[in-house]
Amino acid sequence: MKKRIAVLGSTGSIGTQTLDVVAHDPDSYQVEALAAGSNLALLLKQIQMFSPKLVCVSNRQLADEVEAAAGPGIKVVYGDDGLVEAAAATEAELVVTAVVGSVGLKPTLAAIDAGKSIGLANKETLVSAGHLVCELARKRGVSLLPVDSEHSAIFQCLNGESPKDIHKLIITASGGSFRDRTRSELVGVTVEEALRHPNWSMGAKITIDSATMVNKGLEVIEAHWLFNMDYDHIEVILHPESVIHSMVEFRDHSVMAQLGTPDMRIPIQYALTYPHRKPTPAEPLRLTEIGRLNFRTMDMERYPCLAMAYESGRAGGTAPTVYSAANEAAVALFLQGKIEFLEIEDRIARALDAHRNVARPELEEILLADRQAREIASRL
Amino acid sequence: MKKRIAVLGSTGSIGTQTLDVVAHDPDSYQVEALAAGSNLALLLKQIQMFSPKLVCVSNRQLADEVEAAAGPGIKVVYGDDGLVEAAAATEAELVVTAVVGSVGLKPTLAAIDAGKSIGLANKETLVSAGHLVCELARKRGVSLLPVDSEHSAIFQCLNGESPKDIHKLIITASGGSFRDRTRSELVGVTVEEALRHPNWSMGAKITIDSATMVNKGLEVIEAHWLFNMDYDHIEVILHPESVIHSMVEFRDHSVMAQLGTPDMRIPIQYALTYPHRKPTPAEPLRLTEIGRLNFRTMDMERYPCLAMAYESGRAGGTAPTVYSAANEAAVALFLQGKIEFLEIEDRIARALDAHRNVARPELEEILLADRQAREIASRL
Repeated sequence: MKKRIAVLGSTGSIGTQTLDVVAHDPDSYQVEALAAGSNLALLLKQIQMFSPKLVCVSNRQLADEVEAAAGPGIKVVYGDDGLVEAAAATEAELVVTAVVGSVGLKPTLAAIDAGKSIGLANKETLVSAGHLVCELARKRGVSLLPVDSEHSAIFQCLNGESPKDIHKLIITASGGSFRDRTRSELVGVTVEEALRHPNWSMGAKITIDSATMVNKGLEVIEAHWLFNMDYDHIEVILHPESVIHSMVEFRDHSVMAQLGTPDMRIPIQYALTYPHRKPTPAEPLRLTEIGRLNFRTMDMERYPCLAMAYESGRAGGTAPTVYSAANEAAVALFLQGKIEFLEIEDRIARALDAHRNVARPELEEILLADRQAREIASRL
Repeated sequence: MKKRIAVLGSTGSIGTQTLDVVAHDPDSYQVEALAAGSNLALLLKQIQMFSPKLVCVSNRQLADEVEAAAGPGIKVVYGDDGLVEAAAATEAELVVTAVVGSVGLKPTLAAIDAGKSIGLANKETLVSAGHLVCELARKRGVSLLPVDSEHSAIFQCLNGESPKDIHKLIITASGGSFRDRTRSELVGVTVEEALRHPNWSMGAKITIDSATMVNKGLEVIEAHWLFNMDYDHIEVILHPESVIHSMVEFRDHSVMAQLGTPDMRIPIQYALTYPHRKPTPAEPLRLTEIGRLNFRTMDMERYPCLAMAYESGRAGGTAPTVYSAANEAAVALFLQGKIEFLEIEDRIARALDAHRNVARPELEEILLADRQAREIASRL
């Protein structure tokens, strides 16, 4: 039987790779819904290829254009309400949440509430609302299947294992585009340099987040929720080759690791086929050709954004939301050429300093903290 | 409740380390039986410490000595029949088969027939009698729990996975004491040099087998039986650090690996606690201190003994028995200083050449092939 899926953020990096996995094994999947922002040309191609029953775009005007171009038989919705409908109101069993930013929160909660499995790629879901999401998923008996390569690795390492046997999670970090530079060598780096990730081909925002180590910080907070692990037992180590995607050390000192080529289609497909596996379009790993894997301890002074992530995570409440939202605003300014690379961390710190933390926030409090953090981090 | 275990080969390298695991967590285990060869001093200490109900030694005279020294309340048996009794006739749920050589065959089959789980450390069990052992284990619903670090690694990588999803097994080899020498540099090497294993502290025979790569060859044949995998899908790669103990590549090109310090107590304990884990006396792995892991393709011309293992395994029948028995005889001669290191491989080849293969042999045919191979390989 075909697995019925919905893809939120279908024209982004994770979305297109998800559909690439589907295209390589079309008999196994039925795309129920696609949601995209404004990349109409690509979305129309995807509609042509995957025949979703429902499509969501960001606004009314785009919805009208899609409706005119796609013809009858496809329901077109838009905006925040449309995204919730695409997430929760279709026949999909599994929803891949690959939209970027806090806009992913409501639809993900709605999909969980509707009993759908989640292929989790939206970082803010767990970073900002981990307590709400995990509680609701537990209540509804819904699986949160990580799409991120690091969390997928940990998830695979935990196959058949008991949570009580875990000693610590070891998340690997490539170090990003500036891993061989000192802090003083980061002064005046350009957007183009920052976008040159050594291993992975990803979206612009996440590539910058790799260079600042915010991406790893967000992954640490996500891992805390996803695997119910305290921050003292989540370690980040530098592994420039990105071959070992992450590890789990158990209490017998046995360490399980998941390895692979840096191709997101492997973890994406694992979320789609779990607990089974299928052939992927990804290349096999050739370890003897790579020859050598390196590992270094993480320098928290070199990467203050990672230190701030641990602090925010430990503080809990709305602090991780502020960390993430302030970063998103700051990265946008950096990509627009309006601030320096090193100002990203300053703006996150500024937003965190200005914030009064709210413990166990409701969704509206999270969204308020998110807006305020963006506002503070964006002030020029 | 205490796990009731028997240890065959209790004074050897695996046996003593098994009892070390037990000694670190005495409330979890009850030692039902110990079987040793002739190291009486150590065996008596073990009897004192673990209070087994039954003890087996190699001959009548030793049995009398043990009986006199150990006092009443302990049953003492000896010889081949005694070993079968120690394996099969106690209350043990799990039997660690750590005797070296074909002497391990009968007691292992007897233990399986008696419905006991096997902590498998005796290589000959699967190498010589894989077809008998696997069929009997299936019939009796008995688990074969590998103790060898490589097979334990693969076993751990397969946790929660489906056999149909496996693409290949990747067994790592340190390369042994002569890994940085060419073949011509092997002429005239001494026993002392051969016994200097770079990573593992093991018995003499297995250390020589690491240098000749026979050990890896036997592991390939064992893996064939243990994981029901054809030889084309079992790969050996060189990994000098012995940190990744082995790997499994799945059909989605995801690779799972198990890592740890080179301490046999980790895989030994895993066999004792499976499917759970417990703290071990072993040191944790410190990957960032090690810093670098290397991988190279295996050179079959440098290691002809590995090539012969694949050939013997593919031929099946009694060929793997001949391979293993001829090697055991040749290694004994080398350790006695009677032949050159490079003659080990010649003698294995000679025994294989002289042998007429018997397909699906019964136990008696296996033992006959074993004796003949030893005889041929021992001729000076």
